[in-house]
Amino acid sequence: MKVLWNEEIVDETEVQIDLEDRGYQFGDGLYEVIRIYDGQFFMEKEHLDRLWACADKIRLTLPFERAEFSHRLHRFAEEVGIKEGRLYFQVTRGVCKPRLHDFPDPKEVKAVLTADIQPASRPLVKQKNGIHCGFVADKRWLHCDIKSISLLGNIMALDEAKQKGFEDAVLERDGIVTEASASNLWMVKNQKLFTHPDGELVLPGITKIKLREIAQALNIELIEEPFTTTELLQADECFKTSSVAEIMPIVSIDHQKIGTGEVGTITNRLLKAYSEVIKMTVQENKSEI
Amino acid sequence: MKVLWNEEIVDETEVQIDLEDRGYQFGDGLYEVIRIYDGQFFMEKEHLDRLWACADKIRLTLPFERAEFSHRLHRFAEEVGIKEGRLYFQVTRGVCKPRLHDFPDPKEVKAVLTADIQPASRPLVKQKNGIHCGFVADKRWLHCDIKSISLLGNIMALDEAKQKGFEDAVLERDGIVTEASASNLWMVKNQKLFTHPDGELVLPGITKIKLREIAQALNIELIEEPFTTTELLQADECFKTSSVAEIMPIVSIDHQKIGTGEVGTITNRLLKAYSEVIKMTVQENKSEI
Repeated sequence: MKVLWNEEIVDETEVQIDLEDRGYQFGDGLYEVIRIYDGQFFMEKEHLDRLWACADKIRLTLPFERAEFSHRLHRFAEEVGIKEGRLYFQVTRGVCKPRLHDFPDPKEVKAVLTADIQPASRPLVKQKNGIHCGFVADKRWLHCDIKSISLLGNIMALDEAKQKGFEDAVLERDGIVTEASASNLWMVKNQKLFTHPDGELVLPGITKIKLREIAQALNIELIEEPFTTTELLQADECFKTSSVAEIMPIVSIDHQKIGTGEVGTITNRLLKAYSEVIKMTVQENKSEI
Repeated sequence: MKVLWNEEIVDETEVQIDLEDRGYQFGDGLYEVIRIYDGQFFMEKEHLDRLWACADKIRLTLPFERAEFSHRLHRFAEEVGIKEGRLYFQVTRGVCKPRLHDFPDPKEVKAVLTADIQPASRPLVKQKNGIHCGFVADKRWLHCDIKSISLLGNIMALDEAKQKGFEDAVLERDGIVTEASASNLWMVKNQKLFTHPDGELVLPGITKIKLREIAQALNIELIEEPFTTTELLQADECFKTSSVAEIMPIVSIDHQKIGTGEVGTITNRLLKAYSEVIKMTVQENKSEI
């Protein structure tokens, strides 16, 4: 597999991550996942905006300029040639010897970039049937707005749900629904759309940005306010959003049906609109080239 | 530098950490730091107890038996030959391709061990003078009892304190003092010793275990109950404990003197006793050989 390693495109076997890379010893880094549809990056600007915003939050000096970085990612994607896929990249604070908790001087220690592209197809079957989730206590940190590679809290929550036979976790903190283990969480009640507001308890999702636009275009009222697990169980519809899952209906939580227990009308309208946006964006990008 | 990489002792330049090691992409791993005094491991049993307990908590299958692992660490330390130092080791959940949040089957994916030994001397000057700290909001996750490599929350707290000119952070969650950025936190008030009880908000420190024994031997009452930032500022003495910092007096917080602003009497008694324990343990270990 070809991977991007700092400035170079190399075979993955050539990459030598140092055991004292701060990504490996402190989870000290950031990541993004960009969906590629028909060879086009989807919502690249928003992903890069978030990367730069998160870098500010953890005082990470990114070792590239934005335009050059974008160019590098596109050159990499062209060389790999996967038309339907997901681009994963992460940037760690670099190699620091000997291991020390203190942030190193960025003039002396350069951040390390790695990236790969995997094939990915739209999860159409699951989007048709919906998935079954379970509530899990949200024990993550209070910087959930930072898309960091210190992900053990997220993957433990997912694992807890999977151990109980569910497909994903719906996280709740003191009875308030925050998000799923790696995606934003939404409910529909009386034709209105609800999701947790941005802040330190949830990731400011890229798909969430797009869904705000879509909801407005479809004249669906969107209320970004916290809601409880009880309110969610009484909702008409529920779904989660992420770049890879897109809009994924959740038809039951803790074995209790949400609404009719089938994918809801508004969820389907949003999904249809999201599919249109993907198609339009791809066409626009292509016509620009 | 010689490092331990799974079963092998190799030069660090030979180690090839895979970019898809879950330690690198998810902070999915555990670590320990064992102090070496006069060539002897200090409190090895307790460190290994904690590693195994934490592995259970994150459902990590350790790729070695305990006796063999201990033997491996000692063989490594003998080859490196550093008499006064600290042994760092970490175990990640291994290499998983392609990247997926789900825990892999441990029968298919083997955990990865890395370890190194750095010289370390006792921080006697700082122990004599004490250090200056500042309060920082504790925004870490609610699994602080797990010594994981997903450490971004800890190092951000330390950085916040350092940016303000302090040597370490005293973490507070909703006004309750939890610990320092990477050590347990203690106060002395009216000849009594206080520290936060074990649980999900603090690491069950190895030095804390030893200090319980010492306090009992010295007839100092120990109260393991939460206390507030206000109570701490009104304390007579304050210190933090960790394997490397041992017992480290904190003489001011947020520029406010704790007690007289000098290292306190009970702190000094504990430090003296701790030094005795180190000496005795080293002698006992040597006589066993």
